[in-house]
Amino acid sequence: MPVELLKKLISIPSVYGNEKEIADFCQGFLKKNPKLSLLREKNSIIAHTEIEESKKTVALVGHLDTVPGENEFSGQIKEGRLYGLGASDMKAGDAVLLKIAEDLKGSESKYNLFFILYEKEEGPYEDNGLRTLFRKHEELLKKIDFAFVLEPTDNTVQVGCLGVIHAWFVFKGKRAHSARPWEGENAIHKADKLLNFLRGLKPKPYTVGNLTYYEVLNATMVEYKGGRNIIPEEFKVNLNYRFSPTKTQEEAIEELKEFGRKTEADQVIFTDVSPSARACLDNPILENFLKEYKIKVEPKQAWTDVAQLSSHGIDAVNFGPGQPHQAHQKNEWVELSKVKENYRMLKGFLLNSP
Amino acid sequence: MPVELLKKLISIPSVYGNEKEIADFCQGFLKKNPKLSLLREKNSIIAHTEIEESKKTVALVGHLDTVPGENEFSGQIKEGRLYGLGASDMKAGDAVLLKIAEDLKGSESKYNLFFILYEKEEGPYEDNGLRTLFRKHEELLKKIDFAFVLEPTDNTVQVGCLGVIHAWFVFKGKRAHSARPWEGENAIHKADKLLNFLRGLKPKPYTVGNLTYYEVLNATMVEYKGGRNIIPEEFKVNLNYRFSPTKTQEEAIEELKEFGRKTEADQVIFTDVSPSARACLDNPILENFLKEYKIKVEPKQAWTDVAQLSSHGIDAVNFGPGQPHQAHQKNEWVELSKVKENYRMLKGFLLNSP
Repeated sequence: MPVELLKKLISIPSVYGNEKEIADFCQGFLKKNPKLSLLREKNSIIAHTEIEESKKTVALVGHLDTVPGENEFSGQIKEGRLYGLGASDMKAGDAVLLKIAEDLKGSESKYNLFFILYEKEEGPYEDNGLRTLFRKHEELLKKIDFAFVLEPTDNTVQVGCLGVIHAWFVFKGKRAHSARPWEGENAIHKADKLLNFLRGLKPKPYTVGNLTYYEVLNATMVEYKGGRNIIPEEFKVNLNYRFSPTKTQEEAIEELKEFGRKTEADQVIFTDVSPSARACLDNPILENFLKEYKIKVEPKQAWTDVAQLSSHGIDAVNFGPGQPHQAHQKNEWVELSKVKENYRMLKGFLLNSP
Repeated sequence: MPVELLKKLISIPSVYGNEKEIADFCQGFLKKNPKLSLLREKNSIIAHTEIEESKKTVALVGHLDTVPGENEFSGQIKEGRLYGLGASDMKAGDAVLLKIAEDLKGSESKYNLFFILYEKEEGPYEDNGLRTLFRKHEELLKKIDFAFVLEPTDNTVQVGCLGVIHAWFVFKGKRAHSARPWEGENAIHKADKLLNFLRGLKPKPYTVGNLTYYEVLNATMVEYKGGRNIIPEEFKVNLNYRFSPTKTQEEAIEELKEFGRKTEADQVIFTDVSPSARACLDNPILENFLKEYKIKVEPKQAWTDVAQLSSHGIDAVNFGPGQPHQAHQKNEWVELSKVKENYRMLKGFLLNSP
């Protein structure tokens, strides 16, 4: 059972940016299985079995870092819950991953298997450890046909996710003293149409199979150039667009540009574009998994690293033992029965009994 | 002629908050005229003649501080212009004031005369030196029937000024993850009506005599509570209302509250209310002055300390030798012919030739 492993992982602090010790432990642990080849980039690790062309390839994926946080009961079990920072998000998933890698020593799999553990998920996308691995080992990783990312989902399967765009809608005016506004032009006032359109928008449903995603567009931040007694010369509104997994990011960018013209923005500046994740219900490996186990399947609204895999052409879902509502909470815990259940299902699916 | 005095004042630096040395000089200078009683509060000075009840009372008023700034030609005269930080704003006015106080030694006036020099005009209203003088000596100052404030006007008479209100229009929402906006409410979007109304507003003319003031209302600053991926829970827009001198500040406040209801603001928070200055064209002393000299009379849009005097029931106008466009400029200068002209007119009006 992976519970002892989970206790060990919880005992090693691994707040974002401090993943060396936990990566060292995992590397040492994976090394004990002679069937696995290991690669390490900074504090991110790829372990994989020998790749046989006749077999499909499945990956288990987890991040090693946690957000900072307090836990008064770290390492304790109470009423079937193990407490600790990262217990649900996502050391429970990492423990299942490591346990299956260990079990593989005494058994076989009909799949080639990848075990991927990475640093820096809880921070800017630029430094994301999975991104680093793709930069260095894209060719190797592209052999993966399907990936389970063991983020906390309470053992439901979360499929697809919306893409994310951030863009500044810029309105230009002309600076003047606010006692003589006719000598300038008020940039803040010019955003009236934009706010009016946004206020009228409703979440727009997109359906794939029996999963529904809601496309949404919101102003989340504002900036201006001016002052108390100054007619502002510039007003910027950050639009956050969460676009349907049925759209490419190029289509989404075009839509937002068109929206900029419609709302008379003087400029649209894209600052962040993250792809959506394909709702891969037609992936044969996922189909088999869902045939074998009666598991609830859900659409994912918020962005996850599943989209990063998807952008490299790798179908992936979130499926993990943690409780999503426990992520980033004080005194985080994980339901141990869920950890065992997750382990039992993934092991049953991936390994032949010895 | 006041030019030598002006050179002396320019040679004493008096950037906002550092007025001690120049106040010491002025106090010493005024003391030499035995007809004057002196009061000093910090670096602000009141000098006045004996107050005879049979006479009307006129004040000359100037601030001693300057904004920080550079001047490569400080103290030099080129093409009839004397250069120096504060030359136009408003040491030229102060020099005229001091010269007339000196001339009074050898002549008489049909008025009781006040000479007021104060610190800290170029900063927050709270610390304004004229305000300090009113706090301590309101009863004495209320004897003034009319005041010339020698701010730079290029020797035109500027009458009245708009009042100023700053108020936050607050829109309340509910925080949520921006992937699930239906769990919250977007506060930024709720300002659409406000911006739309503001955009449609035109400057509204108010006429007193043959002077026209333009009432204006503008958004000048914004603030929000939220973040990149957060539905903002609060959005605040600072409205700057410049209201007609024909209105009381209570009337203006009521109007803005009503505007808040109309634009569905959840709250209107007043942060600054400065009164307008009465357009005192009917003041008999001003009437006499304008009969004696053919001077251009203008309405004043921007707020000045004339409004502070007005709020204490004292009619006042701006009338000074400096060039308004030189105020707060690098390499500031003043036209010496204007200084002499201003001095000649005020002296002619206030003093009997000996």
